[in-house]
Parts: sequence; C-alpha cells; structure tokens
Amino acid sequence: MIKVGIIGATGYAGAELVRILMNHPDAEIVWLGSKSYAGQPFPDIYGSFFEIADEKCMAEDMDALSDAADVIFTATPQGLCSSLVCESVLSKVKIIDLSADFRIKNAERYEAWYGIHHPSPQYLPEAVYGLPELNREEIRKARIIANPGCYPTCSILSIYPAVKEGLIDPDTIIIDAKSGTTGAGRGAKTANLYCEVNENIKAYGVATHRHTPEIEDQLGYAAGREILLNFTPHLVPMERGILVTAYASLKKDVSYEDVKAVYDSYYKEERFVRVLGTDRVPETRYVKGSNYADTGFRVDGRTHRLIMMGAIDNLVKGAAGQAVQNMNLMFGLPEEEGLTAVPMAF
Amino acid sequence: MIKVGIIGATGYAGAELVRILMNHPDAEIVWLGSKSYAGQPFPDIYGSFFEIADEKCMAEDMDALSDAADVIFTATPQGLCSSLVCESVLSKVKIIDLSADFRIKNAERYEAWYGIHHPSPQYLPEAVYGLPELNREEIRKARIIANPGCYPTCSILSIYPAVKEGLIDPDTIIIDAKSGTTGAGRGAKTANLYCEVNENIKAYGVATHRHTPEIEDQLGYAAGREILLNFTPHLVPMERGILVTAYASLKKDVSYEDVKAVYDSYYKEERFVRVLGTDRVPETRYVKGSNYADTGFRVDGRTHRLIMMGAIDNLVKGAAGQAVQNMNLMFGLPEEEGLTAVPMAF
Amino acid sequence: MIKVGIIGATGYAGAELVRILMNHPDAEIVWLGSKSYAGQPFPDIYGSFFEIADEKCMAEDMDALSDAADVIFTATPQGLCSSLVCESVLSKVKIIDLSADFRIKNAERYEAWYGIHHPSPQYLPEAVYGLPELNREEIRKARIIANPGCYPTCSILSIYPAVKEGLIDPDTIIIDAKSGTTGAGRGAKTANLYCEVNENIKAYGVATHRHTPEIEDQLGYAAGREILLNFTPHLVPMERGILVTAYASLKKDVSYEDVKAVYDSYYKEERFVRVLGTDRVPETRYVKGSNYADTGFRVDGRTHRLIMMGAIDNLVKGAAGQAVQNMNLMFGLPEEEGLTAVPMAF
Amino acid sequence: MIKVGIIGATGYAGAELVRILMNHPDAEIVWLGSKSYAGQPFPDIYGSFFEIADEKCMAEDMDALSDAADVIFTATPQGLCSSLVCESVLSKVKIIDLSADFRIKNAERYEAWYGIHHPSPQYLPEAVYGLPELNREEIRKARIIANPGCYPTCSILSIYPAVKEGLIDPDTIIIDAKSGTTGAGRGAKTANLYCEVNENIKAYGVATHRHTPEIEDQLGYAAGREILLNFTPHLVPMERGILVTAYASLKKDVSYEDVKAVYDSYYKEERFVRVLGTDRVPETRYVKGSNYADTGFRVDGRTHRLIMMGAIDNLVKGAAGQAVQNMNLMFGLPEEEGLTAVPMAF
Repeated sequence: MIKVGIIGATGYAGAELVRILMNHPDAEIVWLGSKSYAGQPFPDIYGSFFEIADEKCMAEDMDALSDAADVIFTATPQGLCSSLVCESVLSKVKIIDLSADFRIKNAERYEAWYGIHHPSPQYLPEAVYGLPELNREEIRKARIIANPGCYPTCSILSIYPAVKEGLIDPDTIIIDAKSGTTGAGRGAKTANLYCEVNENIKAYGVATHRHTPEIEDQLGYAAGREILLNFTPHLVPMERGILVTAYASLKKDVSYEDVKAVYDSYYKEERFVRVLGTDRVPETRYVKGSNYADTGFRVDGRTHRLIMMGAIDNLVKGAAGQAVQNMNLMFGLPEEEGLTAVPMAF
Repeated sequence: MIKVGIIGATGYAGAELVRILMNHPDAEIVWLGSKSYAGQPFPDIYGSFFEIADEKCMAEDMDALSDAADVIFTATPQGLCSSLVCESVLSKVKIIDLSADFRIKNAERYEAWYGIHHPSPQYLPEAVYGLPELNREEIRKARIIANPGCYPTCSILSIYPAVKEGLIDPDTIIIDAKSGTTGAGRGAKTANLYCEVNENIKAYGVATHRHTPEIEDQLGYAAGREILLNFTPHLVPMERGILVTAYASLKKDVSYEDVKAVYDSYYKEERFVRVLGTDRVPETRYVKGSNYADTGFRVDGRTHRLIMMGAIDNLVKGAAGQAVQNMNLMFGLPEEEGLTAVPMAF
Repeated sequence: MIKVGIIGATGYAGAELVRILMNHPDAEIVWLGSKSYAGQPFPDIYGSFFEIADEKCMAEDMDALSDAADVIFTATPQGLCSSLVCESVLSKVKIIDLSADFRIKNAERYEAWYGIHHPSPQYLPEAVYGLPELNREEIRKARIIANPGCYPTCSILSIYPAVKEGLIDPDTIIIDAKSGTTGAGRGAKTANLYCEVNENIKAYGVATHRHTPEIEDQLGYAAGREILLNFTPHLVPMERGILVTAYASLKKDVSYEDVKAVYDSYYKEERFVRVLGTDRVPETRYVKGSNYADTGFRVDGRTHRLIMMGAIDNLVKGAAGQAVQNMNLMFGLPEEEGLTAVPMAF
Repeated sequence: MIKVGIIGATGYAGAELVRILMNHPDAEIVWLGSKSYAGQPFPDIYGSFFEIADEKCMAEDMDALSDAADVIFTATPQGLCSSLVCESVLSKVKIIDLSADFRIKNAERYEAWYGIHHPSPQYLPEAVYGLPELNREEIRKARIIANPGCYPTCSILSIYPAVKEGLIDPDTIIIDAKSGTTGAGRGAKTANLYCEVNENIKAYGVATHRHTPEIEDQLGYAAGREILLNFTPHLVPMERGILVTAYASLKKDVSYEDVKAVYDSYYKEERFVRVLGTDRVPETRYVKGSNYADTGFRVDGRTHRLIMMGAIDNLVKGAAGQAVQNMNLMFGLPEEEGLTAVPMAF
C-alpha cells in the first residue's frame, strides 16, 4: 500500500486527487494538507466526502509529511514545491508536482513567464515531464515528476504526432483552447462568481498565457528545434473539460487516412488516448470524470491546413488523474490502476 | 460472474446502468438492448463508451435474452416490463424493473394514475419494492424487483423515520421536489431543449404527478394507514440530482436532538444514507455520480413543523445505482459492490 | 426630467437600476454611488455599460447627493439607509430604499431577525411598503419607500388574494421558494463561485430566513391578524428569477373557476401581474428581464389544498424594476414608464 | 407606422424579432407567420408574450401578407425566401431575408455549399448584403436585404479593418468561433437537448460550415481578391452569444496603437460597434440582448500575428437586431430606433 501525502488538498485539483485515490486499491492517503483549512474536517470543505474522508486537514510540516508518506503530491501555487524540495526530502519520498515549477527546463524562461524566482533550479535536469505517452520510461525512474499543465496535456497530445512526423509546419501552429471553470481555481474572486461566468465566453491571457512556453518546449522537442506558436485560452461556462482546436499548415499532400495512420501508430496501444474517426469530434462531456484524452482531426484541402482537436477532463488527465498515472508508473503498478472510471457523459 | 441484460440501454437510466456495471467486478453485460438504436454500436449514441463498450445494440428478443442473462434490467417506459414478464422468463432470470409497473400493489390505482392497462397484475403480490433500506430481506429472495422511482426514493428516505416513529402528522405532509433534467428523459422534445430548460425553473405535474401514489403507499405502510399528501416536482437547469424539501406538523414537542436520534437509529448502519447535522443541508452536488442519499432536517418551533430535506443522484440512487444495489442483494454479493464511487462534487 | 442618485450602483440590483434607468425617458442618473469602486469608471465593473454610462463611481457624500438628486435609490446592505435618512435629507429628496430597513414596522422585530440596531425607527410609521399592487395610493404620497424584498414580492403577490378573500387557512401556509444566484449578491465568496453553484440545488436559511417576517406582516394585514408561516428559499443554478410554490389548506369548497375569478378580480387591471390559466404554470424565463409577476394556482381536491405559484425576475419586479415603478408613482408618471421591456425568454 | 410581417415568427430569431419590434415606436407587427403553429396564439409557444402579443400565428399566404405589410422579414430555412420573391411581391413590400438565400452573389457557390437549388438567382445582383457598417447607403435604397449570418457578422466586423488596410495577410486568416445554443435553432433534436449541450463544448462543421463562403466573400471584397480561410464554429453551453477569435499574420511591423487607430477610424462613429482597449477583451455577456458588436485585438510580437476578437448577441446583431437596423435604414428612420436596450450582463 503506497502511503500518499497531498499538499493543497482543498483546491479543485487536490480534492480530485482525494476523490481518485479513495478508490485506488494500492494507495492510502496519510496526509491531507491544507494551509487555509488546517484543523478542519475535510467534509467541511466538500460535503461529498462526509463519511468517506472525515480526516482533518493538516498544516504544512514537510518533515513529518516526508516521514509519513512514500509519495507527495503538491497541488499548490507555483513556487511552493520548488521551495520545499531538497535532498533530505527526496531521500525519503518521491514528489509529483502539479504546479509548473519543474515543467520548464530553462529556469530563466520559467522566471520570465511566471514572474517569480526559481529557488531550486538544480533539480530541473532530473525532473521528468510527466506525460506518460511521451516519457513513460523516464517517469518510472524519476524522483521528481513535473506533472503537465492541463492545456499543455491536451494540446501536446493533440498535435504531437503531426509535428513529430513532419506533417505540419511548426511555425504555423495556432492553438485555440477552451476550458471549464474549475481551471480557474477555487479562489474567492469576483471574476469566478456564478453570475460572472455563466452565459458568457471570453478569451483571457491572450498572447501571454503561461502555458505557452510549456507547449512550445514539448512540441519543440518533437520538431527538433525551437518553435513559437499562438495559444489562446477561453473560459467556458461549464465546470470541467478542456477542448483544444489547433491549426497548422500541412507540409505534404496528405489524405485523411494518411494522418489517421500516423495518429493510430502513436496511440493505438495507449490506454488513455482515443483517436476518433470522421464520424465524431472530441467533446469534453465524453471524457468527463475520466483519464481519457480524445483526439481527432480534419484535413482541409481548400486551405491546405490540418485542424487538430482534443478533449480532456482538466482535473483528471489534465491534473489529478495524470498524477496518479505517473504514481502508478513510479511504483511499478499497472498504469490504469484507480483510473478505470467510465466517463460521465451526463 | 453475473450475466446482465439491459432493455432500454440507450436512455439516460439505461446508459447509467452500463456506466456502473462496466466497473462492477462480478457482473458482465451480455445484452445491450435498444429498440431505437438496434444494430448501432453503443458509442454512436454515447461517445463516452468508445473503446469501453463498443458492442452493437440489440433488438428486443426476450427468449434469447432470458437464455443469455442471469438478470434483466428493464429501463423502459411503463407497460413494457409487465407485458414481458411470465413464468418461462422468471424460471430463467431475475427481473429488476426500473419502470413503475410493479411499484403499486393495487392494479386499479396503478391504472388510474398511469392511464394504461396492467397486463400482468398476478405478479404484483410477489414483486418486491426495491428500497433496500426498508425491504432488504425481501429483496434478497425476490424474483421481481420494482425498482423505486427517483422522487419516491428521495422522498421516502427523507420522511420515513419521522412517520414511522410518529413524530409528524401524516395528513400534513407536503413534498416540494426539484429535479435535474436527466429526469425528463432523452426524448427529442422541444420542452427539453437546452434553451428551454436553461435559466429557468418551473413546477410540473402539479397535483397530478404519478409518483404521488407510490410515495403515499410507502409512507402509508409506515403510518399504518392510508395517507394523502401533496407532491410537487420542479424542473431545474442541471443534469443530475433530486432535492426534496418536505414539511409536516409535529405531533410532539421534540428537540433537534430527539429527531436526530431517530434518524440516526434508522440510518447509522446504512452504507448509502448519510444523516447530516445542523452545520449542513443536503446539496445535490455532494451525491452526484454516487449512490448516496443525504438527509437532514430542521425543527421549526415557531410553526411547530418539521422540515425534512434529502438529496440523491436521480440516475444512481434514484435509478441505476439502486438497481445494482438490489442486484447485489439478490445475488448474495456485498451490497456496495460496484457502487463505491466517491461523489463528484464539481 | 427626474434627477436620480443611486447608492450602491455596482451591486447586481444597483446595476440593474442603471440598466433600466438608461432607457427611462423621464429620468436621468446624476450620481452613480459605489464605496468599493469610487473613482473607477462604471464600465470597469460592467463592460456592458461601455459607451453607455462611462461615468466614474462616486464615494459616499449624502449632502452633495441630496442636493444633486430628486430621488435617491439605496441598493445597499441593511442598516445603511436607516443611518442616512433625516429631515434635512428628506426635505430635499425622496428615498426609495431597496434594503430591508423600513419594511418591518416593528423595530424590535426587525432587530430580532436582522441582528442589527435600527438607528431611525421614528421614520418607520411614515415609510410606505412599496408594493404598488397593494399600496398604490400611499406610494404616490410617500417620502420614504420601503422597496419590498424579492422573495416577499413574489410570495405576497402569489398568495395575497387567497388570504384576503378567506379562501385559505393562513395558519397552514408553507412557501417553498427558489431563486437565481444574483439573489446571493456580488460578494466574492467561495459559496457563490461558478463551480460551487452550478449543477447544484440546496435550501438555505431554513426556518430562519429574514424575509419570513416581511411576508408574515403583509399577509397578516390581509388576514386581519398575525400569522406564522414556513418560508424556505433554495439556490438554483441560474442567474435571475424567483419561483414561489406555496401551499395552504382551503377553508371552503371551491372550484378552479372560483379561485380564478378571485385572482382575476385583484389583478386584471394590473399592468405587471399576469394570472395564468390551467394551460400553463409560472416559469421564471417568461418574466426574465421584465417587471412582470406571473401567478397561477391549482386546486387539489384530494388533499383539499390550494397550490399557489408565482414567478418574477428578482432583479426587476423583485428589486430595481419595482423601485422604478414606485418612482413613477411618486413623481406622477405613467406607472409603466421605462418598464415596458418584453421578457427575454431565451 | 411601418407595417411588419414576419414569416417564421416562432423560431428563436423570429421570436426575437417580435420581442424587439414590440418596443419599436414606429413599427407594428401585422402578421405573425408560423407554418408549424398556425392558428395557435403566440403565447402558447412563448409564454413571455402573454398579454403582450396574444395574436394567433398565421399560415403561409404570401398574397395576403404582401398586401398587409410594408416590409416582410423571413426568418426561415434556406430556400424559402428565394422561392417566394417575385416582382409582384416586390412591387408591394420590401424584403429582409434572415436566411442565406441572397448572401452569396454567385448562385453556383451558394448551391455548392448549401446543397440546394437557388430558384431566383435573377435577384442576386440587386440584393444588398445588410451589414450597415459596410453597406449603409446601398441598404437605404434596397428592395431585398440579405441579412448577414450570425458568425459572418461577428467575424467580418472583427477582421474587416485589418484586411481593408492591409495590416494582415488574408491567406493566413483562421477564425475560431464559439456560439450559444440558440444558434442551433429550436428543432426538437436529441443533439440540442439540455443534457447533451450542458457541461460540454465541441466543434462542429469543421472545414465545411456554410458560413465560410459568406465570410470569404465579404473579406475578399475588402482584400480586393478572392481569399480562402479556415472557419471553425463551436457549440457552447449558453443560450446567446457569439465570440470570434481570429488569427492572421501581420504584413507590417505595427504597434498596438497603430492597429487601434485603424479600428477607431472605422468604428468610432458607429453606434453599434465598440472598440475595446487593452484593459478588456470582448465577452458575450456584455452585449447580451443588445445590438452591440464588441471588438478588440492584441498584437503578438513573438509570432508576428494579430489576434482579433469580437462578440455579438447572435440573435440581435447576428439576426433580428441587425434586421431591424436594416429596416430603419430602408424606411428613413434613425438607425438605432427600437435598438437602444442596454446589454443585460447578468
């Protein structure tokens, strides 16, 4: 039984970790950390956990936590995990960081986009970008996992095969993404009130969103060179789900079947990536509550562009589910353990 | 491994049965029945099941189905199950009927409220009303389960202890219920379109809703005499969930603690009924996707009334989940098998 | 041209006042007051007003405001208006208070339910309860209007004729109300976040909500004696709208037509109250954005109860629209001026 | 008083026309046409119109209608208006067609994209594309107005100045659009049910949507040559609103201020187009219920692209409101008459 500690258990991603892990046959939560709610029973924050996880939230105590746990998930704002990690901690536990601290290999680039100092750049080289479909073997051996961002997970899985196989010109990539409102977090901000979000759609972080360099880095590795792209997220009046619609110019004359063969070759063995055919497009409801990433695409002969689409649940494959998938790999468990829930389409 | 057949697998309750049973360790779906979609792969109707349940839907064939299955769930309109049930079928399979056909013991009363003829009233005496918290032992031995209606499940669990223990005057019961829109079914009706349901609330079936006699019957058994009550359902712009707010005059001077002790005595051993304290009220989101029924109440000393509240997921505890709970009891399995999903609060 | 000042213009009710008054042919806003946003252009708070009401919000200055305006609307928390009102102010302007300060004639009763001291009880006798359908003539002559609460407006209009004409037993009245989320205000509270409100319904303030005494007072005047009743509000995942479903025992044997005749006699000349027939029930979407109150009812012969229903837009007839209706009466304008918008059903 | 006839008054766009025209001081509806609901009172379809527009719906009778009306709005499926128009009709009334029949000047192109025969191509040359911001003078003199599509209205207004002034390369234009569900119409289709649309986002009509050639034509006129572009619409769980996010490569080195000056020069005199600054982005809620089109943009120096954004209410500026704006121009009325409603942001 893996002993799990969570720092930041009362945010949406943290609570989703609790939800998933409560049904994981080989994991046991030993530490529900929450600075804001320390001392309060977890069901006071989310009544759903009443009689399921009645424990009290714990204040921050890295020493005690790293003694108690085999693995720590940090579902916290940027800058926290990188300030806690050190050899004495890593000698005792593995770390899966759901924040951005270890996603970008270049500390200066991280600091430029995030506007904060990186306190432990010495761990950047060994941290593994935890997208199992790309880095499965490295994940198995890692001490520190940089769990990917929600938008990057969906964007990369949707575009990666096309870049890697040279189907598209990486300099023409435009990613238009749409997210449910759990992605905005649980902070008590006016902008996230029901009556401000409902019956509305808007872009945000246009040309400046922090997930941009993360996507550029990963797709750049696939392209074999640095790339620049446009990434525009939008806030949608729904709770969960990310949809990505991406555009790029084709470099070759390809048919739908050609592209389908490429995507199938990358994903047909993948438990959590589904490649849809021409009869359907990715819809966020069809992955809701599950760890699936649905991908699909269309070839537009008129404009000679490839339109790539993807859908994930931002809290599962985009955060907590992928983190558990990484944990399973790190501890030698079947990759899908605890992650077999069928999507809840309605 | 229990072999399961479903008639009506493509309605919302039917699809929820599939969702739950896909994760049930001791059940296997052998028949996905759907008259409307016979011959079509199930994921054509719900893309969520792609690569999970890719089987084609089956046309109606009761002979073949009763040979293939150990238990049949009928998630169909009223009148279908009662027209199919017969000794030759019952000699081969158990039946869990999610329609109203066997819920009301008096066939004339059924016919009066439902406006259709009951073709097999001879099975009414043996059919067991499948609310495990009331009829657990009879369920274990039954051949036919009348799986309770969604509103009745929530109403009865919320009110039963108060009636049974004589705390309230049964002639004063008023039930004001609110339901998500999956309760209206998947029929392509204008009234159920997004733009007709969203940003709206309304009552329907005022003083005439068919779940009224079902609730009256079950609470009448508790009271030891016939009772009449008001039941008013409302349609709420959400997908899942039923909330019941019920009112009745107190027959005794009781404190909050007195009533709490009564509810606790009925439900503290129940796996799926949670009695909330004064710090919270039932909310539908806290049971979403799960088989829980949350109950709570307030004593209003000013008006000398008891206000009873309850919340369930109409598709789980109000339909498919309760049906699986019944199946577990009928086949000697642990009652919670396949039903341990944590509610998905957001 | 009536010169209008608004204190609290950036809350939902305040902004709705601005929206309505911008199209009022005989009113002109001269003061957009907002303590929180003083100095900021109004469109910074609500982009909808860009190029429509670009004025900056004003800090509190009752002297300057009462010099500048003919009428002041206070869309502020309880306790503010009652602390500002005085003879020097009233000598210059009329006051329409959207808070509860002057709704309850008995200051002790107000203080008991609201938990705050009433600083100016001497004005309670002259303040007029601003429900035009009940108190039209007094409103015309008033200096201070206690603009009714949203729930009370809908509850009273739905029940008043039945009480006044002695159709129902006032001791049996139970009001189950449902409100959209603008009713919860624009405060940045976790409980009002999109992901906490959406896909959920719950009761709140059970047996303790502050609108209870207001409804009891007004229906008590109709009954000619004090009455006690149950009032339970619920929070619904929509932005606007209040639906009331009320229950009471009939005192006489009456037919549907009898009751219809009573309601028609009260409301057939009313511009903003519509009495629906048996073919429809009140729905909040059919009054959205308008000053209408829709009412309807059913006679339940089985339980010998009357079920009364009503729907309003909580921000219009339940707040800003009714306030403008009162202003029109106080200034001798046609009652419907500025209030003729057709409901926006979708 | 202009006498108005509406064909297709019970669809969402038709009912929006009724809503707007009921408050138009110089127009009077003389014909509420609806094939599906002929003979039924209009409030049977939309209860919002009870006591406002109680007329019965009229069956199709072009002779009688063209005698009764000064102008006819056709809010009907493609192919109807073009089959009704003829000299005898045009000798009596003006026609504002909300369908696509006269939007595309090339009949073959229309037939290729819409898959139907155009029965009256002889009227294509004289029909005026009814986007007042582009074609105001021609509209004043027209007999037939091709009222623009919802997506084209928003797309063209957002992009037009940049193309016309040569800021961007027209061959690189990618339009990612998002629409509320009224855009899908009021047909009783499973795909438009509440529980299929809610909590979901998906693309549709990818690379094949019929609004593509309409946008290409209009932007092509601005560019002075034919252009091809990508247009991808998405269905959003909200009722009203279209948001366009468009991308194109810059042809020159321009600053934000340069582009702002261009947009301001096109729109600063326009009553219904608002150019937002850097402090805000277009949001659909800020134009809801109004005839405004909000536009905004960002210059992305990294990728050397311009990101253009626009928001409209698809039923107002995207359909009924623009149709009334056209009517006002055709009849010499102030352009904003009947269209001054302030957006309903919540």
